[in-house]
Amino acid sequence: MKTLKEKILSEGEVHEGNILKVDSFLNHQIDIPFLKEIGREFYSRYKEDNINKILTIESSGIAIGSMVAQEFGCPLVFAKKSITKNIAGDIYLTPVESFTHGSTYGVIVSKCFLGKDDRVLIVDDFLANGNALNGLISIVKESGAELVGCGTVIEKGFQGGGDQLRKKGVRVESLAIIESMNSESGEIVFRD
Amino acid sequence: MKTLKEKILSEGEVHEGNILKVDSFLNHQIDIPFLKEIGREFYSRYKEDNINKILTIESSGIAIGSMVAQEFGCPLVFAKKSITKNIAGDIYLTPVESFTHGSTYGVIVSKCFLGKDDRVLIVDDFLANGNALNGLISIVKESGAELVGCGTVIEKGFQGGGDQLRKKGVRVESLAIIESMNSESGEIVFRD
Repeated sequence: MKTLKEKILSEGEVHEGNILKVDSFLNHQIDIPFLKEIGREFYSRYKEDNINKILTIESSGIAIGSMVAQEFGCPLVFAKKSITKNIAGDIYLTPVESFTHGSTYGVIVSKCFLGKDDRVLIVDDFLANGNALNGLISIVKESGAELVGCGTVIEKGFQGGGDQLRKKGVRVESLAIIESMNSESGEIVFRD
Repeated sequence: MKTLKEKILSEGEVHEGNILKVDSFLNHQIDIPFLKEIGREFYSRYKEDNINKILTIESSGIAIGSMVAQEFGCPLVFAKKSITKNIAGDIYLTPVESFTHGSTYGVIVSKCFLGKDDRVLIVDDFLANGNALNGLISIVKESGAELVGCGTVIEKGFQGGGDQLRKKGVRVESLAIIESMNSESGEIVFRD
């Protein structure tokens, strides 16, 4: 998506430790008119697939999920991250390792909101190692819902999570795939 | 807002400890077409006020904030919650007490994204004691931005936070105000 790549080049900041900061439009301040375009782009890629539920994970997936769900006219479910295991009710729970925080957290979805009648598109802001997506995928499978595919805004291709998923046969659509980036020069190279 | 009150009556569950569960459309599964109506309602109430930024707090404010920001055609900023005080960079940070979790957390907004040129509408899903809103308001004041008002979807009127803010002169628009609710009978009474 050309406008996204331009925005990453003009507003993104490359930091040490494979961090791309896009706080000005995606993670903290959110450029909603631009996110609407992103929602439309995912819709155009998945519109033939009878999707009836969007699944994402708190927090930074929620705004994207909202704009995508709007295009499909369907509900959004956001998975919650728990620190404690002290959760009541009938839930799907899967552990996910966080590289950013160096810890493991539980990803939770209530069983009421995901089941065998659902055709699910998973969306998120970033795809790096793929741990969060893998956690969401395992919840979709456990629920009996049909996983149609994944949509991520920025994929850090060099971290390999996206390609591993594709090898497993999961459809992954990323709107910008970064092949390499350099925190010293600030250079960002996209995959074509 | 009539459709909201109907939805609370048909889908909301009253639990002990003043808890109203609206997980099916507002907090976990999100009814995006309905949230679009909510966005339009806030727009109709604040459209004369030259708002150029929507501020909310993660996580459950983000979907609402996105739909409101869409109506105003402006950016959304979501405040982040920190557990530790170990945060880098130029930030506004204010402590907020959580009644739900019985702890204090930091509410954080990067200084880049809020300043004296902003006319801010704060939005959130719930207003109970008003602690989260008070935290966001103090950040808006510290930033030099103009606080135009607050918009909350559901106000638990009996917990008093909304009326305290109104007494201080803050404009607070809540789309449904609950006067009382009963966890045994499940009864919910709205303020007129």
